[in-house]
Amino acid sequence: MLASASPRTAPLADAAAAFLSGGKHLRPTFCYWGWRAAGGDPAERALVDVGAALELFQASALVHDDLIDGSDTRRGRPAVHRRFAALHRSARWHGDADAFGSAAAILLGDLMLTWSAEVFESAASDGDGVDAARVRRARAVFDRMRTEVGGGQYLDVVEQVSGAMTPEGQAERARTVIRYKSARYSVEHPLVMGGSLAGAPEPLLASYRRFGSALGEAFQLRDDILGVFGDPDLTGKPTGDDLREGKRTLLVAYALERASTAQAELVATRLGDPTLDLDGVQALRAILVDTGALARVETLLAELVSDARAALDAADVTDDGRKALSHLVDLATERTA
Amino acid sequence: MLASASPRTAPLADAAAAFLSGGKHLRPTFCYWGWRAAGGDPAERALVDVGAALELFQASALVHDDLIDGSDTRRGRPAVHRRFAALHRSARWHGDADAFGSAAAILLGDLMLTWSAEVFESAASDGDGVDAARVRRARAVFDRMRTEVGGGQYLDVVEQVSGAMTPEGQAERARTVIRYKSARYSVEHPLVMGGSLAGAPEPLLASYRRFGSALGEAFQLRDDILGVFGDPDLTGKPTGDDLREGKRTLLVAYALERASTAQAELVATRLGDPTLDLDGVQALRAILVDTGALARVETLLAELVSDARAALDAADVTDDGRKALSHLVDLATERTA
Repeated sequence: MLASASPRTAPLADAAAAFLSGGKHLRPTFCYWGWRAAGGDPAERALVDVGAALELFQASALVHDDLIDGSDTRRGRPAVHRRFAALHRSARWHGDADAFGSAAAILLGDLMLTWSAEVFESAASDGDGVDAARVRRARAVFDRMRTEVGGGQYLDVVEQVSGAMTPEGQAERARTVIRYKSARYSVEHPLVMGGSLAGAPEPLLASYRRFGSALGEAFQLRDDILGVFGDPDLTGKPTGDDLREGKRTLLVAYALERASTAQAELVATRLGDPTLDLDGVQALRAILVDTGALARVETLLAELVSDARAALDAADVTDDGRKALSHLVDLATERTA
Repeated sequence: MLASASPRTAPLADAAAAFLSGGKHLRPTFCYWGWRAAGGDPAERALVDVGAALELFQASALVHDDLIDGSDTRRGRPAVHRRFAALHRSARWHGDADAFGSAAAILLGDLMLTWSAEVFESAASDGDGVDAARVRRARAVFDRMRTEVGGGQYLDVVEQVSGAMTPEGQAERARTVIRYKSARYSVEHPLVMGGSLAGAPEPLLASYRRFGSALGEAFQLRDDILGVFGDPDLTGKPTGDDLREGKRTLLVAYALERASTAQAELVATRLGDPTLDLDGVQALRAILVDTGALARVETLLAELVSDARAALDAADVTDDGRKALSHLVDLATERTA
């Protein structure tokens, strides 16, 4: 449909295809196992549509997120706005290449958001496999998820510009951001969507919610740790990128609760400094370790993993579902990338 | 759902409400009359949902468009990115107020795009009024429309940075942009959506398409003329805003086809100059008049209006539908704002 308008739209489709070929496919995986663990048929076609909808939604959010954060890379490649800025330069077009890159990233993110909704609805028309009432229940979760993610991203941006001004309650606010922007969205909502499509009874959906919210938060905490301490060769992101972007993570909030005046001042001046070099990264890392923040986050992460496992143990799921979900707990929280 | 995450998201809901309270509601109006003119029940609730979906989609597109174009105002008020930059300044937050404004505008546009999809689906669950097959047909048009608008906006941006480099075929390209970005989207698609929901037979939908594509293009040409020659007190946009933004409209393409070397050079240097003052606006306006571009666009506009009227005359519509659609032709093409 895009190409029928003009061959000049080809770079949009190319960028979307390149973007979607990467990533961990975390959300489609949880959606699929939410379905399977509730006894859903492994070959159901609607699951492919819903999985694709989740992946397109995530792609859209990341493209806009990278633009907002000014990130240069994503999944080891140039971020979409950088890709289009490079296209502008190589074509020797007029005007500001970065402005063109931003415009294209906004529009491609919008298109992927729209395609996400479109492909979700294909699940409803796949016919006899999944009945309309089940699709409606899954859609209600999808709707809630999409609004929560947008609201969570906004809170994240507000926190980055205002967090330092109101240090009280910062840890609680950081957890709120995590919950809406990523925790429920990474695991809980996709899992419940899969379960709803399979017609899972309410007690099983409740187990999914407990399991998913704990695991999702643990997943995000691992992400926060990797964003500061991760190996760039494995994560595909430059060393200490989250520090340079000034992310107000729980790590930072915990560190500030116990920082000395000198440490707090260093955080205030260097966190979010786009010119932060390796020495600066090391200095901030040292504060996160010395204040005990890293250890506290690791402890909380371990508690959340244990909560998730307890919820899974108590859940009435199929055997292969239990095995897969248990394996996903390891993958999501013990990863190095 | 937004507010449940945190009261700090309130500015998003406020901005959305303020934005949606303005505008001409052109698309819901055409959708409604596409329904009514095909014999649809005036009291059908699903029409309200689909109208709201169209209005939210348009709001999302405008919020992102204003950000991409760097427009300061919309509907006589600050553009959304300016509104949030002002919030940043008044709260005395850290960092770059304009970057915060851009981030918030991206996220609010995304939320409105998502709410548009959500509210469209409510139409399907409103029950007995509209059957599922009709909703599916309307959704197919909605899907095509959303992708066309995104693709058209991208072509528009590409044309702004590359148009001057390839003057041949510029008029044709300008009409392609118009067709996808706005013409079919303003009238044809909403009208056909309304007709599809009412179960209109294919010949009537074909009439709607002929009527809608002609009227939509005429509507956009009027918009282009107002963007250059309009009275800022009536349009709510600063004098000559489209010239300052460097819009590659059909007016500009026609002017360049017949411009003298001196005129072409003035267009090349001043069109898209953000510092363009009233003298500069007057000089560019004079070129659009002297090359005959304005007259050619007015002639084309009149032909399109006549095509639209002929299509309406031949269409098998209800009496009140014919009257309303005929009135809308006047409103859309003879307006001053």
